[in-house]
Amino acid sequence: MSAPALDCIAATRTGRPLGEAAITGLVGGYLDGSVPDYQLAAWLMAVACNGLALDDTTALTRVLARSGQQLNLRSLAPFIADKHSTGGIGDNTTLVLVPLLAAVDIPVGKLTGRSLGHHGGTVDKLESISGLRLPADADEFTKSLASTGIGLTGQSDHLAPGDGALYALRDVTATVDSIPLIASSIMSKKLAAGASACVLDVKTGPGAVLTDPVQTLELARLMVDIGNRAGLPTRAVISDMSQPLGYAIGNALEVAEAVRALSGRHVPGLTDLVLALAELIAAQAWPDRAPDQIRRCLHAALADGSALAALRRWVEHLGGDVRQIDDPTLLPAADVRLAVTAPTGGTVHRIDGDELGRLAAELGAGRARADSPVDPAVGIHLHVRVGDRVRAGQQMAELHLRAAHDQAALLQRTAAAFTVADGPAPVPPLIHHTI
Amino acid sequence: MSAPALDCIAATRTGRPLGEAAITGLVGGYLDGSVPDYQLAAWLMAVACNGLALDDTTALTRVLARSGQQLNLRSLAPFIADKHSTGGIGDNTTLVLVPLLAAVDIPVGKLTGRSLGHHGGTVDKLESISGLRLPADADEFTKSLASTGIGLTGQSDHLAPGDGALYALRDVTATVDSIPLIASSIMSKKLAAGASACVLDVKTGPGAVLTDPVQTLELARLMVDIGNRAGLPTRAVISDMSQPLGYAIGNALEVAEAVRALSGRHVPGLTDLVLALAELIAAQAWPDRAPDQIRRCLHAALADGSALAALRRWVEHLGGDVRQIDDPTLLPAADVRLAVTAPTGGTVHRIDGDELGRLAAELGAGRARADSPVDPAVGIHLHVRVGDRVRAGQQMAELHLRAAHDQAALLQRTAAAFTVADGPAPVPPLIHHTI
Repeated sequence: MSAPALDCIAATRTGRPLGEAAITGLVGGYLDGSVPDYQLAAWLMAVACNGLALDDTTALTRVLARSGQQLNLRSLAPFIADKHSTGGIGDNTTLVLVPLLAAVDIPVGKLTGRSLGHHGGTVDKLESISGLRLPADADEFTKSLASTGIGLTGQSDHLAPGDGALYALRDVTATVDSIPLIASSIMSKKLAAGASACVLDVKTGPGAVLTDPVQTLELARLMVDIGNRAGLPTRAVISDMSQPLGYAIGNALEVAEAVRALSGRHVPGLTDLVLALAELIAAQAWPDRAPDQIRRCLHAALADGSALAALRRWVEHLGGDVRQIDDPTLLPAADVRLAVTAPTGGTVHRIDGDELGRLAAELGAGRARADSPVDPAVGIHLHVRVGDRVRAGQQMAELHLRAAHDQAALLQRTAAAFTVADGPAPVPPLIHHTI
Repeated sequence: MSAPALDCIAATRTGRPLGEAAITGLVGGYLDGSVPDYQLAAWLMAVACNGLALDDTTALTRVLARSGQQLNLRSLAPFIADKHSTGGIGDNTTLVLVPLLAAVDIPVGKLTGRSLGHHGGTVDKLESISGLRLPADADEFTKSLASTGIGLTGQSDHLAPGDGALYALRDVTATVDSIPLIASSIMSKKLAAGASACVLDVKTGPGAVLTDPVQTLELARLMVDIGNRAGLPTRAVISDMSQPLGYAIGNALEVAEAVRALSGRHVPGLTDLVLALAELIAAQAWPDRAPDQIRRCLHAALADGSALAALRRWVEHLGGDVRQIDDPTLLPAADVRLAVTAPTGGTVHRIDGDELGRLAAELGAGRARADSPVDPAVGIHLHVRVGDRVRAGQQMAELHLRAAHDQAALLQRTAAAFTVADGPAPVPPLIHHTI
């Protein structure tokens, strides 16, 4: 028990700001064991119910960022970009964005996650390339960055461990979905990584971290505010997750799709989102260049093969089989492919990405537990997007799977994830807001 | 950790009602150790921030009431009254109310507290009568009730022990001053005592448990609702605590004042409050009698000496020296008496009861720790109330103290507790609301 902790709880309960010293004492005290969990639990609930002042949320983020190792990525290059996504279905944005930025000489340094549940992880996607191994330590990371302009590695337990401790308590006290707590959790890892600038891809729609669009906007604005106050220039887009991004759901399928996008083929959703994020980063890297100039430069890197070449260099550096980049049909492939067809003609009104994500995870593309393996080959390849017209019997998707599954049930569930109806379908914008 | 507990926390956080089974599982689980303290701490804060539905608050009260022994007082007589005060300065209401009710054949059974801090306790007041000892067990309690119509004993650790456990957690999580938590705490002990009917004296003003009049009204209404829903017919008054009740602050001084009131002398504030509470109880005991008839009966018991005789019988039964009732100058008296005089002529605009209560406690009338002794003789006797006119140099109060104190400083602090000014003083009503 701690009397100052009690004062902090009472202040947040009544909406009074705490100040950085008090937040540091309270949360630091919890992390070092001097503030008991029941006091921090009460404080977390007060935050969840009443919110937290921006200064206090920034202070909380700093405390969590300082709770472990601090990478200070920006010491490795004059400008180094970081990117974060709140997670979506078929979200292979990083696989395209990072080589594109490297191709225009904007190095990227970033920690990235593995798949869990029906949300994919960039690590698993990259590792579907045979032989590829991400940097295992700081030395390999620095070498990759110096040699290819890309430093990407798995999440580290040493980075912002306080956020993990706080999350464990939030998880058992019904305080996970609190905007200031989500924002400070995400931004603490970004601050600990210490890039020159950061761009956030905040998803909105069913299956996003927050489903309410107003709350999603509030979360995005808060994260941008925290980053800018804490010395990490940050921009954000709120991007649509009412249908899967692009056409591919599944590890190797998403790598193949990334190769297509990097070859200059326009992949609806994916290419557009990558360019929006790349423009925000490039505007920070090149403050003197006009938006048009930046846009032309990025389009050129996709069109002239330099973005794809950056991917190839990176894969090669990581020991991956570059033949699979040159010919993605060489990537791991599933034994069975099943066509899902439209039961009737009309317009695609809705694609339930959350359900398709769950299906792909059940096929083996995701993992239920952090230590389970994933199958790189399986997944779902869409042939249509919302707003497309289909004829009865036309193929809408292809399932890539191992033989063991109950195919009839799978086909039925997949088909049910598509809504085909008469009349034009309202197509949501890909980018809802840019902050 | 408990998954149902997590659901309960999430429900209260979002304002959804839980129902009796869920509340019983959550709070009962905390009391039996199966729900960890950090989960209950989060739930308490959700209640403190968002409130709790009346059904859920009633369910919480029942769980706490059932957490230990249940006295079921109403099994001891056809009708048995209980009374509770939220605590005030110079509040000797119980010493007058209980003999008055006994005199009109309404038995009272009640647990009562000791002084703590600057709030007096009925046990200490009664024990300033030489030789008096309150019933120590259920047998003595029942005998006292049968023989005198009055059963009064100290708080029992066996009654609603869950409330004590919950209070300990509230105390370290800044969730003490939550209306549903205060109401369920108070009413859990009333339910566990199990009288036929209950009257609550909810104080309002500086130093009261809640200082805001709107919140005080809300608390009183909630306690009445809980009592009536849980099978204990309950009424309440909201009584003024903007100045001390009556003229006496201190244990023997308050006994002497109670004797005066029971002798039929009108003690402003005290007599009026006692009659208001007695009428509410009597209306429940005698549902067939008209309010006028009830009032005449109670006034008669004060005027004809039967109320004083009831006190005398009770004190005698408890082994107290009845000569001190017959002649209160025989009660323990202090060595030193100091007169506090008006510095200027005018009207008494304000008497700071909270400060006078603290002074009396410092003189020895209260205790800082639960195991310290109290001095029965010391205290403060007021000679004026708000609205009285005084001349310069007129005595406003008398301090009763031991010789050791710094008398000049005491006189100065006491005098500063009185505000004398020109013009008429607004006199607050004694009874703000009756519920």
